[in-house]
Amino acid sequence: MERQVIAELSIIPVGTKDTGLSRYIAACVEVLEKRGLVYRLTDMGTIIQGSLKQVLEIVQEMHEVPFRLGVARVVTILKIDDRRDKAQTIGDKVEAVRSLLPEVKI
Amino acid sequence: MERQVIAELSIIPVGTKDTGLSRYIAACVEVLEKRGLVYRLTDMGTIIQGSLKQVLEIVQEMHEVPFRLGVARVVTILKIDDRRDKAQTIGDKVEAVRSLLPEVKI
Amino acid sequence: MERQVIAELSIIPVGTKDTGLSRYIAACVEVLEKRGLVYRLTDMGTIIQGSLKQVLEIVQEMHEVPFRLGVARVVTILKIDDRRDKAQTIGDKVEAVRSLLPEVKI
Amino acid sequence: MERQVIAELSIIPVGTKDTGLSRYIAACVEVLEKRGLVYRLTDMGTIIQGSLKQVLEIVQEMHEVPFRLGVARVVTILKIDDRRDKAQTIGDKVEAVRSLLPEVKI
Repeated sequence: MERQVIAELSIIPVGTKDTGLSRYIAACVEVLEKRGLVYRLTDMGTIIQGSLKQVLEIVQEMHEVPFRLGVARVVTILKIDDRRDKAQTIGDKVEAVRSLLPEVKI
Repeated sequence: MERQVIAELSIIPVGTKDTGLSRYIAACVEVLEKRGLVYRLTDMGTIIQGSLKQVLEIVQEMHEVPFRLGVARVVTILKIDDRRDKAQTIGDKVEAVRSLLPEVKI
Repeated sequence: MERQVIAELSIIPVGTKDTGLSRYIAACVEVLEKRGLVYRLTDMGTIIQGSLKQVLEIVQEMHEVPFRLGVARVVTILKIDDRRDKAQTIGDKVEAVRSLLPEVKI
Repeated sequence: MERQVIAELSIIPVGTKDTGLSRYIAACVEVLEKRGLVYRLTDMGTIIQGSLKQVLEIVQEMHEVPFRLGVARVVTILKIDDRRDKAQTIGDKVEAVRSLLPEVKI
């Protein structure tokens, strides 16, 4: 397996009239689902595991989704955590913090 | 209960020599735990629910933690989602997306 | 002068019907202007210099502005760069990069 | 000219021992300079204008720079503002806000 990065993607449609954005997010998640990358949906974004190239490709694809649904402006925020001194997969970082806080139920 | 915002906080110690950051994150989470706010730890940050004032206070407090551990520079990223046309609590947004994708196991 | 941080603030009104956001940004900048903090407006946010406390206070104040103009949901993104091993003021970081690239007109 | 997006890129080397990051940023800017994209350096990131494809390509390239200089972990943050109802170039958004605040020297 190619070196994996952990990324977080947040796509914000602008000028949507409606304040609810879940249908846009759901359509973005469907695209991600089809690609087969490992991901976690959170209240503030989608965490994705993949090679840097895979992540950037899926970001481009997901960023297009709201436009296809009629949105005219999209703000997309991507944060990439790329660590090359050891392999990391989704969940590892939460686990590392948890192991340091045995008394806390995170 | 005062109006709640959902926020995501990411604290990045800079100039730490070591690439691993989990001990700093764990110390930040301990501070959060003591305050009793509802939160979720993810691989890319900590999602916090609270009033805007509570969130900004805890951000200030958590941002100080790496300095107390000897770090000389900290980059802190805060994203606040504040929706005032309906109440939202942690987990609601993921649930709203899930309900639109019944066939997907998110 | 108290220790200064350099922060960047980006305020995104959601559900505005109109895709243009400059009138919201202008109203936020007016609030900042009144406070007398040093700042720079860029195409992607507002860079602010102040003590950590001042920055968090002005963020709270600026975040309220779009709501007063009728917006029902606001996503605010704040990035704080807090360096305590040497004083930094707005413009210093760009200058440091420039001095390393004498041949480039940045 | 292909449709342009305005993006902001912030590259944070982690585990660098030294708190100063300007030499990494300078090396990233050199890569950007060679590509010929329009950009502006700020204290909190680099604002880049280009097609979505161009921006994602240059992000991938710039993200690699600190690794080539010996850094083992890099956090990269990209924010893309993509507006398709009207053309926008770098500087337009600041100008739009300025025109609404004639009395303010931004």
